[in-house]
Amino acid sequence: MRDVALIGVGQIPVGEHWDMGLRQLALGAIQAALHDAGIEQVDALIVGNALGGNLSSQNHLGALIADYAGLRGVSALRVEAADASGGMALHQGYLAVASGLAETVLVLGVEKATDRTGSERDTALATVLDADYEAGSGATPAGVAALLMRRYMHEYGVALDQFEGFSVNAHANGALNPFAMYRNRLRPGAFAKAPVVAEPVNLFDSAPEGDGAAAVILTAAEHAADRVARPIRVRGSAAATDTLALHNRADMLFLQAANLAAGRAYEQAGIVPADIEVAELHDSFTILTALQLEAAGFARRGEGCQMAADGSVGREGRLPISTFGGLKARGNPLGATGVYQAVELALQLRGEAGDNQVGTPHLALALNLGGLGGTAVAHIFERAE
Amino acid sequence: MRDVALIGVGQIPVGEHWDMGLRQLALGAIQAALHDAGIEQVDALIVGNALGGNLSSQNHLGALIADYAGLRGVSALRVEAADASGGMALHQGYLAVASGLAETVLVLGVEKATDRTGSERDTALATVLDADYEAGSGATPAGVAALLMRRYMHEYGVALDQFEGFSVNAHANGALNPFAMYRNRLRPGAFAKAPVVAEPVNLFDSAPEGDGAAAVILTAAEHAADRVARPIRVRGSAAATDTLALHNRADMLFLQAANLAAGRAYEQAGIVPADIEVAELHDSFTILTALQLEAAGFARRGEGCQMAADGSVGREGRLPISTFGGLKARGNPLGATGVYQAVELALQLRGEAGDNQVGTPHLALALNLGGLGGTAVAHIFERAE
Repeated sequence: MRDVALIGVGQIPVGEHWDMGLRQLALGAIQAALHDAGIEQVDALIVGNALGGNLSSQNHLGALIADYAGLRGVSALRVEAADASGGMALHQGYLAVASGLAETVLVLGVEKATDRTGSERDTALATVLDADYEAGSGATPAGVAALLMRRYMHEYGVALDQFEGFSVNAHANGALNPFAMYRNRLRPGAFAKAPVVAEPVNLFDSAPEGDGAAAVILTAAEHAADRVARPIRVRGSAAATDTLALHNRADMLFLQAANLAAGRAYEQAGIVPADIEVAELHDSFTILTALQLEAAGFARRGEGCQMAADGSVGREGRLPISTFGGLKARGNPLGATGVYQAVELALQLRGEAGDNQVGTPHLALALNLGGLGGTAVAHIFERAE
Repeated sequence: MRDVALIGVGQIPVGEHWDMGLRQLALGAIQAALHDAGIEQVDALIVGNALGGNLSSQNHLGALIADYAGLRGVSALRVEAADASGGMALHQGYLAVASGLAETVLVLGVEKATDRTGSERDTALATVLDADYEAGSGATPAGVAALLMRRYMHEYGVALDQFEGFSVNAHANGALNPFAMYRNRLRPGAFAKAPVVAEPVNLFDSAPEGDGAAAVILTAAEHAADRVARPIRVRGSAAATDTLALHNRADMLFLQAANLAAGRAYEQAGIVPADIEVAELHDSFTILTALQLEAAGFARRGEGCQMAADGSVGREGRLPISTFGGLKARGNPLGATGVYQAVELALQLRGEAGDNQVGTPHLALALNLGGLGGTAVAHIFERAE
């Protein structure tokens, strides 16, 4: 199995791009990534996208985007795993290079979230839940997150305001990121007065869906240093699953898939959680941030929120997270999110994160979730010395 | 790069399974494949599915099906490349084993085509075309196939009845296959009197969408013989793309993606087209069958139909195709089709095809198309000696 390196990154701002469809969004990120890597052609394109068929009436995105990006003829496919589609696309790209079949692979995450609005969008978003036993009863992702958060608060005696720190941190970081959907800091007291989305989940507990695209280029590690000055090693790449429906889980307050995926990635890399210096977690809801900190070995069960309260996850803390704003402030372009995470961590490891830079980290973790953790994909990146 | 072998196959009959949803369809094929391989657990599940989000309001199928099939926790994802989703899932499974990361992978193709009917189904099927430049103008796959067929007939002076042989062959073979959707032979004269779908495409030029699921199990070739009596080697696995929209192709009468994918697979296997003894082509429309025979090196351009007329593609011919009925008679369960092709060819190479057996072939080709050839996936299978 060949070692794999990341040699190019590209992204466009997350937002409401009313003038762009899927292919136009994709093109900006692809061109930026190819330029960053200094190459013009790849062997394969892997597209992470969650809802193109539902939100834009467009499936078959692999071939469509390969053609539009000037890559006609390459192997191309779409990978879908709800909002873990981007991380899963990265995992497939990793396998293509690791196998030796492909020398250079372009991994794209793209989502066009704003082609539908209101109940049409809600219906599309709910297709990541169990259609027969959750969405069919009217449940939405926010609604299910609310049940989960309520249960967590009850079991561990955690108050709503203890989740506030995650949002404050995300917005403080997003304010510095030119690619972020929301660049506003949260004013003191704003969290407590925020409109309720699905009680107890409020506006600042939940991330906004946005249009976006991000891309990375992978190649064999042995050739990476010949191509770029600062290649990033992919030290771990692993995925795992759990039930879609929360009510089927043996213990809904433990993200089993995230635990498995992170554990497999740690094992591949030969490291322990304490070795991770910066992380991007899937903070689509603050309750998921707390649960991921616990599942990935950074906090004891029931104590995830303490890492927000004591500053551990801040830019000066022991494990900075959401360093470019996370899903909360950078925005959540669903199937593109996992690739944005990889782009952002690569920039951190290269020392090219600008105002968002957090020290000089060597090891980084990305954790990308599908739905409420039915799928989890973990990647560990390392700065090559 | 490790050699890969196929050690288990499973399928359910293609048809209108009104009493089953995606997970139930999947389960039958998965259980059959696990039983066939004599194993109970795998490292990863790769689900090929084209339209679950549109036809069943269910995305996130990897985790959903992993859980329902008793595989909770494994890495699982959905691969989508229109009706080439199944072949593309197989390609991803191949990479997972070839890379060394996974020892045993379950590749599933599943489609629930009958949850929507009429214009709702037509709209969903059209998401495999270019939404902005084809489907948005009212085009459907059958409509676009009609334009292609008309152009072919005009350029090469081919008459409509010269396509008849493909359907007669498919139905003759499907009549013997207990898993086929249509088990009727075509009566003499039936083709000429068939209702028109989109002139000149008639009912017997086009394959019926159906519900279905098929599964195969892949593992490293070096261990395959320890597990099963008759492992099948995967000698080639390759994909390629073309424009979705026909009007953007430099030469619409040449399936560039099919040519590239087959060519790459031949090269991997170190063989030439004449070495192939049995093939499953993507006969969603008879015009595509003719064009694939030409693109994959079996017939000169404009002469594909002659292989139907002279019996070359029949069970006694030099290149039997659609040996279990093809998409035309076995049925076209869209994202599952590519996995059905693999199951059927594995049965042929094992000598376990029953009434559908065509001699004792050593080398087989599967060609799976997305849409009108925007995506093509080629696999070459070999009987291990």
